[in-house]
Amino acid sequence: MEQIYNFSAGPAVLPKAVLQLARDEMLDWHGSGMSVMEMSHRGSEFMSIVEQLESDLRELLDIPQNYKVLFLQGGASSQFAMVPMNLLQSKNKADYISTGEWSKKAITEAQRFCTVNIAASSEEANFTYAPTQDKWQLDPAAAYVHYTSNETIGGVEFNWTPQMLNAHIPLVADMSSNLLSRPLNVTQFGLIYAGAQKNLGPAGLTLVIVREDLLATPITNTPTLFNYQAHAKNNSMLNTPPTYPMYITGLVMAWLKETGGLAGIEKINITKATLLYDLLDGTDFYHCPVAKSDRSRMNIPFTLKNPALDNTFLEQAKANGLIQLKGHRSVGGMRASLYNAMPIEGVAKLVAFMKEFASKHA
Amino acid sequence: MEQIYNFSAGPAVLPKAVLQLARDEMLDWHGSGMSVMEMSHRGSEFMSIVEQLESDLRELLDIPQNYKVLFLQGGASSQFAMVPMNLLQSKNKADYISTGEWSKKAITEAQRFCTVNIAASSEEANFTYAPTQDKWQLDPAAAYVHYTSNETIGGVEFNWTPQMLNAHIPLVADMSSNLLSRPLNVTQFGLIYAGAQKNLGPAGLTLVIVREDLLATPITNTPTLFNYQAHAKNNSMLNTPPTYPMYITGLVMAWLKETGGLAGIEKINITKATLLYDLLDGTDFYHCPVAKSDRSRMNIPFTLKNPALDNTFLEQAKANGLIQLKGHRSVGGMRASLYNAMPIEGVAKLVAFMKEFASKHA
Repeated sequence: MEQIYNFSAGPAVLPKAVLQLARDEMLDWHGSGMSVMEMSHRGSEFMSIVEQLESDLRELLDIPQNYKVLFLQGGASSQFAMVPMNLLQSKNKADYISTGEWSKKAITEAQRFCTVNIAASSEEANFTYAPTQDKWQLDPAAAYVHYTSNETIGGVEFNWTPQMLNAHIPLVADMSSNLLSRPLNVTQFGLIYAGAQKNLGPAGLTLVIVREDLLATPITNTPTLFNYQAHAKNNSMLNTPPTYPMYITGLVMAWLKETGGLAGIEKINITKATLLYDLLDGTDFYHCPVAKSDRSRMNIPFTLKNPALDNTFLEQAKANGLIQLKGHRSVGGMRASLYNAMPIEGVAKLVAFMKEFASKHA
Repeated sequence: MEQIYNFSAGPAVLPKAVLQLARDEMLDWHGSGMSVMEMSHRGSEFMSIVEQLESDLRELLDIPQNYKVLFLQGGASSQFAMVPMNLLQSKNKADYISTGEWSKKAITEAQRFCTVNIAASSEEANFTYAPTQDKWQLDPAAAYVHYTSNETIGGVEFNWTPQMLNAHIPLVADMSSNLLSRPLNVTQFGLIYAGAQKNLGPAGLTLVIVREDLLATPITNTPTLFNYQAHAKNNSMLNTPPTYPMYITGLVMAWLKETGGLAGIEKINITKATLLYDLLDGTDFYHCPVAKSDRSRMNIPFTLKNPALDNTFLEQAKANGLIQLKGHRSVGGMRASLYNAMPIEGVAKLVAFMKEFASKHA
């Protein structure tokens, strides 16, 4: 097998050590004679996997006891509806910060349930920066404030956490593409959600971390499976959870702890992102459109000065084992996603390839 | 590794050949250098997996072209809400047949969206039979008729398909625990749904087969992810689907085709169920409460004449490698689930153990 480096935005590269362990345990988990896929979700074997997963997540993120950790299905796109359905309560307004394709999707879905106040937006600059908080025009009647901490498509990341001046209005964050990539103070949030298929594990699992006092009866016509309170009461076993994705996520959490936890992985992530941004900024052959202060460590979009070379670039990259570098269909160009599991060697190889490509085609 | 036989009601045993192939392909699917878990859901590699999966499902079930096959998340419990939210349209009533714990759950959820007419029920007999169609009191104003073709907990299976007298009222079936265990005429149904974790594959995937003319705008406040039409328009790629469970399900479909398709597996399933029912009926040491005409081939509940022996039975079964035989917490006793992937040898070993246990404790 050729060594390839997979820069996919998600589902994305997983730690090789995790895949090797999953392979070795596929037919017989810990002498049980069963694959994890074959285990009853209420049996002692799988319960021990869930408990370890939750315990590791709580340790890595230092999640306080008054927060529930929920293991759900449906991806961040389901959360776009679950958040308003559950958090609106008697209010009919919510604040949203608009910083790219994913916050726009969250806003469009929320508008089906309430009035959305766009408290700040970078749309006028084609979503190339994150509006600083002094620009936010929050509505005091809002049920919550929602933002996307990292825009997977646009490559805009909040390198700071918004401060909520009104303690009664919870801060909600879609952290699908940067959760667990850096230390985080969970107590600053009312609710955090993330699809698993970036830094957590395989597609099919959605993580929700929610402060207990926010659990309440949702609006009319909310399906029971969209009710946070019902999931919390049943410890995420309201129905059969996505057991195998949870198991793999558990292996990824153990790997992350061995790698030095969030402080350790942040150092590595800074090293990787710096390698690529330094190249992009040191040449006019490549260009990154995002404001320097708000650049994502996870998803790095860039363009070639001469877009006629795009396909040649992608083909030669692939021939060098550097795959999934095509930009999202909505923006074009290139994008390199450097999630936790992308080794430094992969980024070094990409940078070396890009330098050579630039020198050949300058 | 000791050979164990896993009688779990779901998640459940998978074909050993499938697990072996998944193990071998874990780090490198078909020379791609990637695990299936690491593939972009829109990349050519994963798209080829989805296309093969859908093609095999269509072949096995002979699904006509005017039916859409949807790969969703959330389990059958999500379908309990999605069905009324999408199929009620301008009506506000639906017919439900009540045959056990799972139809009761479907009914309770549907009642949140419409008036439910219990057209027939076996509750008066503790859900031990399936009401024949001459007993059904259907409401001509109902938007659809819903039934549970196999009750996983109670072990009651419809060995016949209801005939819809009014062609404008679609028949909807929860087939979570018997889909693909026997031949089926899809054209008799408007919509079929099934959680994957019985005969299809791992937990986290939900299959929906729906006649195209039923796709329409759902009721107010339906989350976009609960909208069949939106999923159908996007070929189940409205958001990231549960990619790895879909891959494993694809391997199970290939295995099922090699095993002789639905006609082939039905013969094996009849053989297995007959082995166990013959034992249960040939002794008064064990008892199966279900009416002979409506006994499930998939889930076989039984009790011991002396319930004080229950724990001894379960412990000794486990010591013999026969696991997950405890009945559902809501009904007690024992239950043996004999899904497609349970080999005949497993049932033979169970029957031999039960005979010996009975002779020792008679």
